Parts: sequence; structure tokens; C-alpha cells
Amino acid sequence: MTQDLIIGVDLGGTNVRSAAVDAHGRVSHNAKLSVWGSPSRDEVIDRIARVIQQTMTGCGPERVRGIGIGTPGLVIADTGTVVFAPNLPDWVDLPLGPVLAERFHLPVAVENDANAAAIGEQWTGAGVGVQSLICLTLGTGVGGAIILDGRIWRGANGAAAEIGHMTVDEHGVPCPCGNHGCLEQYASAPAVARQAREALQAGRTSRLTELCDGNLDTITSALVAQAAMEGDEVARQVMHRAGTLLGMAMASLTNILNPEMFIIGGGMINAGELLFEPIWSEVRSRSYTWSASILRIVPATLGDDAGVIGAARNFMVEQGG
Amino acid sequence: MTQDLIIGVDLGGTNVRSAAVDAHGRVSHNAKLSVWGSPSRDEVIDRIARVIQQTMTGCGPERVRGIGIGTPGLVIADTGTVVFAPNLPDWVDLPLGPVLAERFHLPVAVENDANAAAIGEQWTGAGVGVQSLICLTLGTGVGGAIILDGRIWRGANGAAAEIGHMTVDEHGVPCPCGNHGCLEQYASAPAVARQAREALQAGRTSRLTELCDGNLDTITSALVAQAAMEGDEVARQVMHRAGTLLGMAMASLTNILNPEMFIIGGGMINAGELLFEPIWSEVRSRSYTWSASILRIVPATLGDDAGVIGAARNFMVEQGG
Repeated sequence: MTQDLIIGVDLGGTNVRSAAVDAHGRVSHNAKLSVWGSPSRDEVIDRIARVIQQTMTGCGPERVRGIGIGTPGLVIADTGTVVFAPNLPDWVDLPLGPVLAERFHLPVAVENDANAAAIGEQWTGAGVGVQSLICLTLGTGVGGAIILDGRIWRGANGAAAEIGHMTVDEHGVPCPCGNHGCLEQYASAPAVARQAREALQAGRTSRLTELCDGNLDTITSALVAQAAMEGDEVARQVMHRAGTLLGMAMASLTNILNPEMFIIGGGMINAGELLFEPIWSEVRSRSYTWSASILRIVPATLGDDAGVIGAARNFMVEQGG
Repeated sequence: MTQDLIIGVDLGGTNVRSAAVDAHGRVSHNAKLSVWGSPSRDEVIDRIARVIQQTMTGCGPERVRGIGIGTPGLVIADTGTVVFAPNLPDWVDLPLGPVLAERFHLPVAVENDANAAAIGEQWTGAGVGVQSLICLTLGTGVGGAIILDGRIWRGANGAAAEIGHMTVDEHGVPCPCGNHGCLEQYASAPAVARQAREALQAGRTSRLTELCDGNLDTITSALVAQAAMEGDEVARQVMHRAGTLLGMAMASLTNILNPEMFIIGGGMINAGELLFEPIWSEVRSRSYTWSASILRIVPATLGDDAGVIGAARNFMVEQGG
């Protein structure tokens, strides 16, 4: 039996998922565990190990050539170390790669989660055949990844592609990163929910009041998208504002990097044209015509699988095939 | 006699310069002609040819292995074509490389002028040994160049590094590029002069009124820098504002690309700390600490030679040594 599979692992803020990924990017033997509620560092590692074990048992351990994992936080790919991860307690200088390698007696490649998703989309998703692309994932934050000449650009010390922390408003909303006016404060899922809440608190009438049963704390970006698609003016304005500032940042990125493609992922893309129309409007009016003329802006296509597929692909690339 | 020299040519908005450049980046046999006042396309090409000829005659044509030229505008390096150059009449799809190659029976490499200057600074200037850097030249515009993994990033169709056209103010000053609020409208030399003029026209008292003999049209960025260094409050505020918006853009670039270094060139860097202090202040407060911790921001060191040295070096790299 050949070692024809890689275990791809995607560690997120809510769940850790794993799957067996073959040489064509086909996914099987999914496993998933919750990591919600700030479990300890060792507990998170243990749950990672359990999903890996479950997938390996499913596909047969003798078929597994190695493990690729995508994790939040700053990753030093060469050593498989997570330098820090804002939302994971005690994840400081954690040698995640070596720890998993020792448990499973397999080689391990570690990558940042946003980078892993981009690698996945480029391999079998929206970016097939594209050599230079920028991925933006609109979720808890605005995750970013940059692929140039077919390879992830990690930066001088591994912290590149923090696109959510581009300044879009000099005197804007404070961001936990220390900056103010970060893109993430306007275009992430919680930011969209916050802006809708603020509009309602300011006394505006909206279908959202009904949809959330009067409890503003239950407003989510999905609810805002739903209200917007039902024609609610407040919700439409909030989505439009998110798209506008996203588009403004993407226009700057187009002028800076002149990529072939942006891939936009995350639940918010379900808002469709409500989001993509203002994005294109800003990109067209603010970036060089020459650069915009070849640019494509497309939704991600792999959904939740992007992370595991990309993490596995990253292993293949890092281990030379 | 070996062919030990490359002719480096730097075509600017005011002059075209050439020099012989040896394998160590040493410059000799400088030649210069004006291209001021919108001469025709053929006339510009003729003046380029004349400075090249003058340098060749000086150093001995038998020593010249090839020609590297840096030109304003959008360049397709592979074919040596200038697609367009905003300030050069009729420079549309001009096969500059082939034209010069035919005249001199020598191989020619064409590069964008900002890229050429960055290549020069990285080879023998402020960026020696640095693999990822961003060059910003504060002149007629805000020129940009991006070097990643030791190589110029040109973008998907050659238009990358238009850093002067990052949006720094959503509702800001209109820019000829079609956008509004471009960095260039606040931090280029003409923008600094304009902002000082506007302050004076608004009735503010400033030493600049004296320095320009009451003729506001003669205010230049150099004059503003001089007044600022003499303690003039209006001039200091204008320089500070330019530095602040530069720093804000550089913080975003740090979060996007995580480079090792910024090299800042152009006459305005003579303002020293008046410019660099607000730059650092913004970069420190707006970019990730991890990225900023390794970042260096330094003035360019090659001055006017950066272009010819970099154009020659680009030839060496493109022609394989």
C-alpha cells in the first residue's frame, strides 16, 4: 500500500477539523471537535491529536505520508513553531510541528490558517492556475493571504498579509491590534453586526429589530445580510459600507501588488452583489485602469474545506511533492 | 580588453543621464542632457542615444557589454517595451529596448525608473544585503518599488508598486490618476509646496512669505523644508502632515508585506527628523509590533546615481550576471 494521503488539519476559533487529502485534493474521512470556550493549550493540542487519530483510523494509518496543519497566529514555517496566537491561551513559542511529529511519528508542516486556506483555493478552488492572488476571509476578523509567483509571501519574519489591519480611516474605530481605523473594524462579521446595532441604537427603524426579536445582542452579520437582501435600508447601508471600505483597501492593494485575482471568502460573501458591487465600484474608481483591466474578484469556492485542503497541500509543497 | 562595463541610463522628467558602471557598481564617464519642455518622442530617444554615445566614447566602446535603462512609465521588461509614460508625449507601446539595441548593436534591458533606483540602492546603497524592501522616492510624485526575496515585484501585468496611489483619505484631494485621497497628493514635493501655499492663502503667517518674496508660486518643497528647519510653524505642520500620511501608508505596507526595510529617497529627505519622526510615530502605533520590531527605515544613499547604477545592475541580472 502506498502512502497516498496527507492529513490536513484546520484549527479555527470554534472547531478543529481534519481530513485525509489525496494527491488530487480530494477530501475524505472528516473529523471535527469543538475548541470553543478557551480550553487550555494542552487540551487544544489533545483535541487536534484526537481528530488526526480519528481521520487516520478511518483511512488507514499506513496510507498517511504526513500531516499539514493550519493554525491561527504567527507561524514560523521552517520550525513549525507558533510564535503567538491572539485567541489561544498560552500559545507562545509553541513547537506545534515537533509536538505533533513526535506523537504520530510523521513529518508535519505548519502554516498560518489564512495562508493554508489561500493555498487550498489556489490548488483546487477559485484560484486554480493563478500565480498572483490575494485572499480575504471575512470572518471573526479580516484574514489575509498573499500568493506571488505561485508561493505564499510570508514576510521578513512571518507576519505578512495582515490585510485586516490596513488603515482605512485615519481617525477611525480603535482596534485591539493597537491601531485605529483598521479595515477589520468595518468589514469583519462582528464589525458588520456592530455597525447595524449602532444604527438601531441611534433610533433607526429596521427590519433587523424584528429579526432579532428586539435583542440587539443577537444581531449577526448573517442576519444583517438577510435583512439587506430583504431590502432593509439600514442593513443595506451597513453592507454597502463594508463593501466600500473593503473595495478601497483592495484598490490600494491592486496599486501596490497588481495581482491577477482577489478571492473573497467567509460567510459574508452570501450577501453577493450587496457586497461585490461596492467593492468593484471602489476598485474601478481608485486603482489603475491597467491593473484593474486584468483583475478578477471572485468568491472562494472550497468553503470550510479550504483550510484542510490547503494545509495538506502546504505539506506536499514543503516536503517537495 | 574585456567587456567589463555596462552603460546605465536614467531617464527622468528633467534630464537623461548615463554613466559607465563596472561590476562593483562604480560609476564613471557621466553624461547628461536636458529633456525638459516636452520634446517629441524621437527627440527624447535621440538625446538618450547621445548621452549613451558620449559615455561610450569616454570609456571606450569595446569595453561596453550592454545597456541598462530606467524610464518613467509602465514597462514590460521581457520585451523592453514602454506601454505608456504619463509625462512623455507619444510614449505608447514604444519598443525602447529594441530601438536602442539596433542603434548600438548591444543588448539592452529596460526597467521602470523607480524599480531601477531600488535595484541600485539594494546593490550598493542603503539596502545592501537586504532581501525584502520597499523604496519610496518623494519627488514629482511618490515613486515606489518593491523588492521581495531579492527581486523586483513587477505585478501581474507590470504595474505594481504604485504606492503613491494608495488611498490615505477616503474623501481626499483628487489625483490625476482618477482616484482621490492618494498618498501622492500629500507627500510628494509638489503636494508639500501646494499645502504650504494653501496655508498662506488662508491667511496664515509664515516665514515662507519672506522666503518666496511674496510670490507663492515659487514655493517649493525645498523651501518648505528650509522654513521648517528654521522653526516656521506652518512649514513644520505641512512637513509633519506629509510624514504622518507617509507613515500611515507605510504602516499599512508593513502589515501587508512585512518587509525588512523602507528606503526613502528624493530631495525631501533633507528635512530629516521633521519627516522621519512622524513616519516612525505612525509606523509604531499602526503596525504590528512583531513586524515593526525588525523594520528599518533609512534614507537612500546613492542620490542621483541610484538610477544609472540600478539600470546597469538590472541589465546584469536580466542577462545572467
